[in-house]
Amino acid sequence: MTIEKGDLLYTGKAKMMYQTTDPDVLWVDYLDQATALNGKRKVAIDQKGLLNNRISSLIFKDLAQHGIANHFIDQLSEHVQLVRRVNMIPLETVVRNAASGSFERKFNVPHLTSFATPVMEFFYKSDDLDDPFINDSQITALKIATPEVLAEMRRQALLVNDRLQTIFNEMTIELVDFKIEFGLTSTGHVLLADEISPDSCRLVDKKTKKSLDKDVFRHDLGDLTTVYQEVLNRLTAVEGSQA
Amino acid sequence: MTIEKGDLLYTGKAKMMYQTTDPDVLWVDYLDQATALNGKRKVAIDQKGLLNNRISSLIFKDLAQHGIANHFIDQLSEHVQLVRRVNMIPLETVVRNAASGSFERKFNVPHLTSFATPVMEFFYKSDDLDDPFINDSQITALKIATPEVLAEMRRQALLVNDRLQTIFNEMTIELVDFKIEFGLTSTGHVLLADEISPDSCRLVDKKTKKSLDKDVFRHDLGDLTTVYQEVLNRLTAVEGSQA
Repeated sequence: MTIEKGDLLYTGKAKMMYQTTDPDVLWVDYLDQATALNGKRKVAIDQKGLLNNRISSLIFKDLAQHGIANHFIDQLSEHVQLVRRVNMIPLETVVRNAASGSFERKFNVPHLTSFATPVMEFFYKSDDLDDPFINDSQITALKIATPEVLAEMRRQALLVNDRLQTIFNEMTIELVDFKIEFGLTSTGHVLLADEISPDSCRLVDKKTKKSLDKDVFRHDLGDLTTVYQEVLNRLTAVEGSQA
Repeated sequence: MTIEKGDLLYTGKAKMMYQTTDPDVLWVDYLDQATALNGKRKVAIDQKGLLNNRISSLIFKDLAQHGIANHFIDQLSEHVQLVRRVNMIPLETVVRNAASGSFERKFNVPHLTSFATPVMEFFYKSDDLDDPFINDSQITALKIATPEVLAEMRRQALLVNDRLQTIFNEMTIELVDFKIEFGLTSTGHVLLADEISPDSCRLVDKKTKKSLDKDVFRHDLGDLTTVYQEVLNRLTAVEGSQA
């Protein structure tokens, strides 16, 4: 069966999601745009959608090959990805290997201080509430997720962290932190979803210490397309050598 | 050996702590003053120290009788309590049975919504950082407490909640939430410390739904001394009947 694009389901900051002729499959269109300050600043950036689609596809494929199931089905074209439909859990899961961003500011810790064990944070995805930082007992009390689902998210997030650290290490990149999102399948299983790209990871070149992620855009540190292309080049080299 | 008051060790918002002639014992002076807005507002309130000292002493004694060890040794006079010296863990442990205060505001939940299971929150006691909300992995990464100490704090906090709910229920009071603090003994054991009083608990009369705690002061709802005296009267009635 050929899968065809259906009605628009959701417009995100950098992606548009469509239904397809298969009720279990979604059509994801990666947009050539970047936002910052929770969407208040939005800029068109040539090639960004293409680069993130390619990077995210390669990473999701790698994770699946290493036993971490996820929603990725296929990269259909430069900007389009097919993914398995899940009910998204409204939580952002952040894993940190070193201090940066909000953690650095909140706890006044020197930039890139390494942690002996990864820090994991959940943020409740709610535009009205401004995506508040939330802990396990609050998540349970508000019935956002059960303790069992949370434990499974935590387990998978640590596996993702381990594998991503290995991949980026081979790319001479330090994985400072990243954000992932999970969904529930129709049978109630926790499945890694959303995307993994320089939009959702904080990456630092191990040699030059330069940012190789969306911080380039957030803090006007240079040309985003050049940086994302560099990440894709290194990723292709690593993933290609494994094939 | 008679214990005598020594050098001032620490001045808090509502208490002053002194060393004594016994290195393992501290002298706590409960002050007749109330603060709000993290100490920015400070008012002298007649009898408050006496009332909190008496209430906290009665509760600590009750908890010890019910198997929850704590730092309380003896009430020495109207304003003075002797306690065991511990190394304070710089965390506030908040247990919530229903939504109020910062939880209500943060998650936009109706006032006094009951939780199926208690919510537990930790706040990092740091004036410079403005006492930020913190989760387990952040506490561990910042070496504020080990996972084992955190687990023990959580276990004891739930026991305290169970016993306090029973006490206040007998007093026709709903225990909405409370804040406690723990210390480590010289042998590394987690020991309940600080105080438990209407300054650190959110209490609502089950019949009239009126606040019987520091919210009376925070929100100018009436005379604090009258309210705290009411709590002490009911507590004395309950604790007296058990003797």
